[in-house]
Amino acid sequence: MENETLIMLPGPVQLPERVRFAMARQAINHRSPEFGAAFTDIVRVLSSAFGTSQAPMIISGSGTAAMEAAIANTGRNKRIANLINGKFGERMVSISKRYGAEVTQIASEWGAPLNLASLEAELEAGCDIVTMIHNETSAGILNPAEVVGKLCRKYDALFILDGITSIGGDTVKADEWGVDIMVTGSQKCLAAPSGLAMISVSDRAWERMTENPPYYLDLPAYKKSAHKNPPETPYTPAVPLVLALRESCLIIEEEGLENRVQRHHRMGEAVRAAVNAWGLSLFSQPDALHSYSNTVTAACLPEGVTDKALRGFVKKMGIQIAGGQDHAKDVIFRIGHMGAVGAPEILGTLSVTELALRRAGYMPQESGVMAAAEQLG
Amino acid sequence: MENETLIMLPGPVQLPERVRFAMARQAINHRSPEFGAAFTDIVRVLSSAFGTSQAPMIISGSGTAAMEAAIANTGRNKRIANLINGKFGERMVSISKRYGAEVTQIASEWGAPLNLASLEAELEAGCDIVTMIHNETSAGILNPAEVVGKLCRKYDALFILDGITSIGGDTVKADEWGVDIMVTGSQKCLAAPSGLAMISVSDRAWERMTENPPYYLDLPAYKKSAHKNPPETPYTPAVPLVLALRESCLIIEEEGLENRVQRHHRMGEAVRAAVNAWGLSLFSQPDALHSYSNTVTAACLPEGVTDKALRGFVKKMGIQIAGGQDHAKDVIFRIGHMGAVGAPEILGTLSVTELALRRAGYMPQESGVMAAAEQLG
Repeated sequence: MENETLIMLPGPVQLPERVRFAMARQAINHRSPEFGAAFTDIVRVLSSAFGTSQAPMIISGSGTAAMEAAIANTGRNKRIANLINGKFGERMVSISKRYGAEVTQIASEWGAPLNLASLEAELEAGCDIVTMIHNETSAGILNPAEVVGKLCRKYDALFILDGITSIGGDTVKADEWGVDIMVTGSQKCLAAPSGLAMISVSDRAWERMTENPPYYLDLPAYKKSAHKNPPETPYTPAVPLVLALRESCLIIEEEGLENRVQRHHRMGEAVRAAVNAWGLSLFSQPDALHSYSNTVTAACLPEGVTDKALRGFVKKMGIQIAGGQDHAKDVIFRIGHMGAVGAPEILGTLSVTELALRRAGYMPQESGVMAAAEQLG
Repeated sequence: MENETLIMLPGPVQLPERVRFAMARQAINHRSPEFGAAFTDIVRVLSSAFGTSQAPMIISGSGTAAMEAAIANTGRNKRIANLINGKFGERMVSISKRYGAEVTQIASEWGAPLNLASLEAELEAGCDIVTMIHNETSAGILNPAEVVGKLCRKYDALFILDGITSIGGDTVKADEWGVDIMVTGSQKCLAAPSGLAMISVSDRAWERMTENPPYYLDLPAYKKSAHKNPPETPYTPAVPLVLALRESCLIIEEEGLENRVQRHHRMGEAVRAAVNAWGLSLFSQPDALHSYSNTVTAACLPEGVTDKALRGFVKKMGIQIAGGQDHAKDVIFRIGHMGAVGAPEILGTLSVTELALRRAGYMPQESGVMAAAEQLG
């Protein structure tokens, strides 16, 4: 179609044909064995992608709805520490405040390492819950979930982890790391359409549920419905999206989770190699505990090249990449490399971006495209 | 497909091919002119179907989520009267209680007329908000929205109306009737897939918003995003469902809203004619103010015929009809006649149901199928 472009955003992402056409099926009853079978396939694959023995639940809504469910069911009037090094970390503060929580923001600059010393002080002072964004897409950084999970267990705090842009694209081991509530979204590394969020809850989090969550986000109601035979959801779900997500999960199973994670790592390395070859800076500043994201790369715009000039040219060539958000707007550009994409999409995107830099007056030091191709080849 | 059956439930409903294939499109960015164009088409058609000059907002979630949004944004710690004559009326009580409301249940038997004398007494006593289910699908009754709307205005209370199974299938005039918040769902009379809910808010309701709704159901945030150019949603929406709903809305526009309502009326009359010809009783008890539903018919099972025998046979013949819910289980069966269905589906369903009654040992007085065909012809 004329207005179809290649989407290389940090979500939504390109959808495989099988996934798209799963939605074209005639309506089915959402309280039926047919629906239950899709539900069961999803739970099997996602338990493995979450790294948990718990069955993830399916909420028809955005990832934000599921993150709110995590806070709303455990955090009312509690003491919550929100780790922040990007936009989505900031959003958790707004959500926590809706539930009367006593909120401590442990904030670093966007893309800088988290302040774990402050976190430990807060845990010592009796904090009940810690929230963290695993892969902060606004800055292109992967935060140390295992280290924070172990700290939380040491002080017996609940650990809520946003895995929206890591699950299905990077290594996640919720149980082993001590994650109590983990969330993901459909339209990211799982390569399904937007509109569903999945959430898993540890036994200790189930034991610490607080009163009076919103009716639509009442996790015990989701758990009860998921245990019916056939399994279902407490309220009418987005049926076509569930059928699409099931197809995405079957694709993940066919590719193999470990292969899929490795593919994302290679794509991340390739895009970073291009940025380096161009002579541009990566935006985030990993250290021994933090790494560059393997699902999205944030690069600094060179002097004299505007966001509008760069992304406008790329879009005219049929590809959508992302700009910076909030104060990072006109400072960075971001290339998503999550889901069902591989060498053709990555190299096509880097080629067009390289040309866009040239047309905007910036002469790259070396060919980023060739540097990336070397990584992928 | 082998497991595809004709769905004659009070939602979800059969989907036209155009609607289903709108979802097979490649992913698009939900903050783009393409998405904004779909959003604008939906708002145009639904404003007309709601009977309001306000622009309905789109929530990715079930109808229950939108009904919760109505209460959560206006009802915290308020005095709320919930009108009840069926299952969905009861659900509004549970939702109202989550927000600390002082709740008065004005309950009739399922399918019986609402107690408007008690309502007026409650309004006189200072009630802030009244909730009502326009078309109560659990009982097959249409409640008097205009009368209740005028009563609410007389006493300056807000009127929240669940139009989930009336909008797009029956006459709705939110502004003229004095409805302050009106809600519908995608998978009912609009004949779109399940997973979206739409909500409109009057000026006076905007002026009476209460503090601290759930983050995901924050109506002012939806309003703000809808006014952007291009319009969007505050959180990632279920994009394929929005594209499908737009197609459903274009179909409604092509059919003409008034024609569509008349078609639903004729289908309702036809199914009721069949029930009468069979010698069975309709479950609901309309009076001068209440009518039979034109989108779903609830009939009493004859003595000796179980729900399992009747619906099991109908399903084996490839059609799904509904049973009764909660205490109406094994007392009634329900045939949905909403959305994109017409004479073939109605007469096919009635033929199979008539045979199922015979096979279960009940001999209908006359042919319900012919009585219905006469109404439709």
